[in-house]
Amino acid sequence: MSSRIETEALVIGAGPVGLFQVFQLGLQGIACHVVDALPHVGGQCAELYADKPIYDIPGIAVCTGRELVQRLQQQMAPFKPTLHLSQLVCRLERQADGQLLVETTAGSAFIASTVFLAAGVGAFVPRQLVLDGLEDFHGTQVFAQEADPTRWKGQHLVVAGDGDAALQTCLDACKQAALGGGPASITLLHRRDQFTAQSERVALMREACAAGLMRFVPGQPTGLRRDAGRLEALELLNPQGESEWLPLDVLQTCLGLSPKLGPIAQWGLAMERKQLVVNTENFGTSEPGIFAVGDINTYPGKKKLILCGFHEATLAAFGAVALLRPAEKTLLQYTTTSTLLHKRLGV
Amino acid sequence: MSSRIETEALVIGAGPVGLFQVFQLGLQGIACHVVDALPHVGGQCAELYADKPIYDIPGIAVCTGRELVQRLQQQMAPFKPTLHLSQLVCRLERQADGQLLVETTAGSAFIASTVFLAAGVGAFVPRQLVLDGLEDFHGTQVFAQEADPTRWKGQHLVVAGDGDAALQTCLDACKQAALGGGPASITLLHRRDQFTAQSERVALMREACAAGLMRFVPGQPTGLRRDAGRLEALELLNPQGESEWLPLDVLQTCLGLSPKLGPIAQWGLAMERKQLVVNTENFGTSEPGIFAVGDINTYPGKKKLILCGFHEATLAAFGAVALLRPAEKTLLQYTTTSTLLHKRLGV
Ligand SMILES: Cc1cc2nc3c(=O)[nH]c(=O)nc-3n(C[C@H](O)[C@H](O)[C@H](O)COP(=O)(O)OP(=O)(O)OC[C@H]3O[C@@H](n4cnc5c(N)ncnc54)[C@H](O)[C@@H]3O)c2cc1C
Ligand SMILES: Cc1cc2nc3c(=O)[nH]c(=O)nc-3n(C[C@H](O)[C@H](O)[C@H](O)COP(=O)(O)OP(=O)(O)OC[C@H]3O[C@@H](n4cnc5c(N)ncnc54)[C@H](O)[C@@H]3O)c2cc1C
Repeated sequence: MSSRIETEALVIGAGPVGLFQVFQLGLQGIACHVVDALPHVGGQCAELYADKPIYDIPGIAVCTGRELVQRLQQQMAPFKPTLHLSQLVCRLERQADGQLLVETTAGSAFIASTVFLAAGVGAFVPRQLVLDGLEDFHGTQVFAQEADPTRWKGQHLVVAGDGDAALQTCLDACKQAALGGGPASITLLHRRDQFTAQSERVALMREACAAGLMRFVPGQPTGLRRDAGRLEALELLNPQGESEWLPLDVLQTCLGLSPKLGPIAQWGLAMERKQLVVNTENFGTSEPGIFAVGDINTYPGKKKLILCGFHEATLAAFGAVALLRPAEKTLLQYTTTSTLLHKRLGV
Repeated sequence: MSSRIETEALVIGAGPVGLFQVFQLGLQGIACHVVDALPHVGGQCAELYADKPIYDIPGIAVCTGRELVQRLQQQMAPFKPTLHLSQLVCRLERQADGQLLVETTAGSAFIASTVFLAAGVGAFVPRQLVLDGLEDFHGTQVFAQEADPTRWKGQHLVVAGDGDAALQTCLDACKQAALGGGPASITLLHRRDQFTAQSERVALMREACAAGLMRFVPGQPTGLRRDAGRLEALELLNPQGESEWLPLDVLQTCLGLSPKLGPIAQWGLAMERKQLVVNTENFGTSEPGIFAVGDINTYPGKKKLILCGFHEATLAAFGAVALLRPAEKTLLQYTTTSTLLHKRLGV
């Protein structure tokens, strides 16, 4: 068992609100660790609209999702949080001594005095191909995480999906094959001959098919064949309504991400329509020491806006300091004038 | 009587929160008028720390008070609010038909369906020299507002104060006298021979005194002499503890600004320790249609921070639209994706 990391504060979710939570905890003199299921910070802003403009961040007439994330990272930088990315928090449990045990799918374990759930609409996890029995091959022959070319060297590769990620994975594999060390064959699999990928990328894919570097097979997986513990082929229902077999060694699915509230729903916290119920005084949940901020919480008047999450994270940080340092008077200090805050900010 | 301006929304106070209130009302399709006692927008940020850095505006690692105000002005610009500056709201009263009558010291009158009190710590008004009977001459011989040189042409001018504004007023008057058309005499009055003005300005003032262009008289006003309805002289207690008379025609006081909650305290709204009590669902006060946002309000957990005011203004705008357009469903729309909001923003 890996050793447990002890921390005063653990932030679950590195979306815009989680990042600002780190900043506000830092102002209060509380260092923290941050966990996110994605390989990068930014939550919905980074994942769903990185290049689109936002107009209602106060004082920023316009910025893209990516720019907002960069700005929040810059702002929290003085507080050097430890980031634990690409891992899902899968367990949250109170210990006998009142501390909170948090575990992730990557085997990290934390003993935290306070936990900040900034988990948005849930963890962004790759959408899986739903097919009876397929889960037996996850991680050995079937992959949904980011493409890793070393997996399909010399193998018959099937890539499932119709978006940019799926097509690009095929094109990259073609290039790899041309250079040597690529797959033995490359097949793109999608229900029908229509794609959501950018038209340029679709054109490149068709060229690669025409050149015999790869092929496209339309069809809907309906079954699978296994032999001696190995996945051998997928059964497809093709657009003509006929059944056919697609042999393969490796299946890479590129079906996009979908948010999963997942384990959070099972932690015994008071909920209302999939949201955590909080008070508006410090955005604490029904469990002392567990705060919920941003899209994941609910209270009368709640709007799922980033700027509201900023306010919530701020009051939650005050709530945490009241718990963690009960002896200290939590006076309001201004960043403009407080020498204590200047010291913490390093300015 | 000047005609009354009818408006769906009136914002009282053009501090950072009042400015963002305008933006959020605009997103909701509600145009508004804004009143402030100061001659410029920005409230405390502009008045008290225009050149000092703020570090806790989300997504803005650092900016000065002035920069923040400029950014908020830029953001609200698409909604073209009508500003009514240099006037104090002195009356707020519900009409028989439920509308709100608002009047200012400059004689503006509004009939508003909703009012947003973003009045901070109160109106910034010039500090007055406190002296029995002096108020009889306010506006005729005694002035506390910004200096207006036409008032003292050919007159014996006394300027009271020890800061940059007081000294600069004297220096400007000296220049005016040198060019012709200035005061007959110029006297700077302050309790003692010590000044809070910048040292360069103090040096210039001493030079002007040495050159006989003006003089400095130390002393504390203790009384006044009047004749036929005119203020003739101030009685002073000088540093030696003696009483002396200072004759004058015009008294210009430059004693800085002080925030006055003033009339807001008398409007019958529920208050707690000088703050307006609001609910956290839409930041409404005890009176329907009257919202209070920013430093002026209070609720459990309240922190007098700008970013909290941004959240409050946002939920108050949702509260207003629910009142003003009860038939419309107030769905949450994202500025990133909503064509309606893009149209309103003009992007
Ligand atoms: C297209 C679009 C446009 C938008 N436009 C605007 C706009 O203009 N203005 C605005 O204010 N808002 C807008 N929003 C909403 C805004 O993006 C959200 O309010 C905001 O992202 C919420 O931030 P958050 O930090 O609470 O959650 P999220 O951004 O959802 O981040 C939550 C993070 O937590 C992680 N996580 C969740 N569960 C776990 C777990 N168990 N373990 C590990 N990690 C976990 C997730 O991977 C994710 O990274 C828009 C949203 C979309 C989709
Ligand atoms: C030195 C200093 C440093 C600060 N540093 C920070 C910081 O780092 N971070 C932070 O978040 N906050 C900081 N603050 C606090 C921040 O400035 C306030 O929270 C903010 O200004 C409140 O905004 P507001 O719009 O509610 O009110 P205000 O800024 O006070 O504006 C209210 C406006 O309403 C007007 N008004 C009031 N009554 C009337 C009336 N009857 N008629 C007409 N007009 C009226 C006033 O003239 C004023 O312009 C600081 C404050 C100070 C003094």
